[in-house]
Amino acid sequence: MSITLKQLSEHLNLSISTVSKALRDSYEISADTKRKVIESARALGYSPNPFASALRTRKTKTIALIVPELDNNFFVQAISGAQSVASEKNYHVLVYNTMEDTRKERGILKLLENGRVDGVIISLAGNTNNYDHLKELIRTGTPVVFFDRICPEIETIKITTDDFTGGLEATEHLIGNSCKKIAYLSLSESLSIDSRRKLGYFKALENNGIIVDESLILKCNKEDKATSYEKIKRLLSKENKPDGIFASVEKLALITYHVCKDLRIKIPEELKVICFSNLRTATLLDPPLTTITQPAFEMGCEAASLLLKYLLKRRNNTIPDEHIILNSELVKRGSTSDKLQIN
Amino acid sequence: MSITLKQLSEHLNLSISTVSKALRDSYEISADTKRKVIESARALGYSPNPFASALRTRKTKTIALIVPELDNNFFVQAISGAQSVASEKNYHVLVYNTMEDTRKERGILKLLENGRVDGVIISLAGNTNNYDHLKELIRTGTPVVFFDRICPEIETIKITTDDFTGGLEATEHLIGNSCKKIAYLSLSESLSIDSRRKLGYFKALENNGIIVDESLILKCNKEDKATSYEKIKRLLSKENKPDGIFASVEKLALITYHVCKDLRIKIPEELKVICFSNLRTATLLDPPLTTITQPAFEMGCEAASLLLKYLLKRRNNTIPDEHIILNSELVKRGSTSDKLQIN
Repeated sequence: MSITLKQLSEHLNLSISTVSKALRDSYEISADTKRKVIESARALGYSPNPFASALRTRKTKTIALIVPELDNNFFVQAISGAQSVASEKNYHVLVYNTMEDTRKERGILKLLENGRVDGVIISLAGNTNNYDHLKELIRTGTPVVFFDRICPEIETIKITTDDFTGGLEATEHLIGNSCKKIAYLSLSESLSIDSRRKLGYFKALENNGIIVDESLILKCNKEDKATSYEKIKRLLSKENKPDGIFASVEKLALITYHVCKDLRIKIPEELKVICFSNLRTATLLDPPLTTITQPAFEMGCEAASLLLKYLLKRRNNTIPDEHIILNSELVKRGSTSDKLQIN
Repeated sequence: MSITLKQLSEHLNLSISTVSKALRDSYEISADTKRKVIESARALGYSPNPFASALRTRKTKTIALIVPELDNNFFVQAISGAQSVASEKNYHVLVYNTMEDTRKERGILKLLENGRVDGVIISLAGNTNNYDHLKELIRTGTPVVFFDRICPEIETIKITTDDFTGGLEATEHLIGNSCKKIAYLSLSESLSIDSRRKLGYFKALENNGIIVDESLILKCNKEDKATSYEKIKRLLSKENKPDGIFASVEKLALITYHVCKDLRIKIPEELKVICFSNLRTATLLDPPLTTITQPAFEMGCEAASLLLKYLLKRRNNTIPDEHIILNSELVKRGSTSDKLQIN
């Protein structure tokens, strides 16, 4: 243990209260005493206990970052972004993984209700469709900032990309590269990102006079990878199978790659594939994967800086209701190429 | 804010001390009073302030997990493992990223010296070659557990895989598949994993009567990706270039893939590649990447359970000196195939 305030006071032969005031730069203490106290504190390695400090200031200098999965570069990059901002401001980051489970999400938020953190940044679990736990946390005084998978009905800071435009552009890119039967792989109907991306898909079909075929919309929610694999395999084994796939999330595109490998379906010749993804190895896949890439790191930075800005300045409990929309980017690669000679 | 102990006491018309004792199940308080207090606490949503509790018990129920990079599945899986154990025991996990920078590592450890966490799990930064900051943290009462990138000279719990055997088997696999000039890509000479893996490489060469060629050992330490790319490109542009590459870490194998793409060197026909990696997309790469895969999730679990076991039982400040070695697995894929017809 480093030395306590009591030990420091005994060493200086001063009262605890005097030492404490000196360390807080109180006007009641002379400059000379302050200097002595600070020098001894430094020499003896005294650092204030963060919990005593948290009780006094009601600030923990800690934020929580809650994500639905870690095995996904999008969230890992967002965590990196949030951490880089937090560490610059000397904040600590508790990281939680809900593993796409709303019950786990509730449990984590419950643990945070008693003031363990100053604020929360969250991207919702796939099956979260009731928001009481989030409202309760905000009501008890802990501000919540959403990124990517947001709750539209809660007034607070929300950071997303333009998922509608992303979905529209992804689908139009497939149509432009000769796809006529485009499947949409959905992760969860209750997610904001999923419904926005699907609306973009519908709009692109409409713009191009293609009628929606409900049998091409695959719901892969609340499932393990093996079940999604079987569903996608059935879809791609049909007589009248799709010639293009727009996966709402990376995980479903990677499963599609595995299915195609096993069924010996050639990408992009027989099936073109596009998805929302921040996969670092997208260019090294066989074939390279066309992605709508979100500015994940920047989204994490933005979420953390807006939360910390609010925490450092707050006079009352009302966090501003702001929706920040960043741009994502369609990166064309081999998996959607229309030429026979692909790179 | 949820209600305070004071408010709960006022509501019950009891002293704070009585309520506090009742909540702690003290023998001084009658069963009847305890029941009343607990019922009201539940009804009014009282939960003990974690900081007050931390000051009283000197337990924060929080551990820190410090990794050198997040953009690496090995560390992400280890974090998942540690978190799953921590959350089961109601512990919180602060995650820190040193970004391979020993100065950042020192700064983080300094922040943890004042008792913010009960214990630390760490994998060292690539350029850490002085361990004073770790010794100081342990001296001040915070136990430290190492995983993967350990400090051999500090007596504590260390979790690794058998890096020597992994390096030996990787190199023998390349030799068995006709490689005669095998390069070793080193991340950092000061890292325990790097030196063990390199010793395995040397041993395999020796076992097969191959003389070490120092020009085939590439040191990619303390560098950005662009510099490593240039170094590997120079290595693979030489007249007398290697026919096999053993990369000590995944990052260097992926850069090798990019170099080969740009120089139009065919893997595995002209160059075979193997590396330590937990890459989720290894089977989908072009060609699929042969890896020595570590049980990353299990290593995280093991580190957290041993740390928590110690924290929950500790009577004094001495953490046991234990070295746990888990098995890694060589997974053969296309990048090292010796046949012309590869899968």
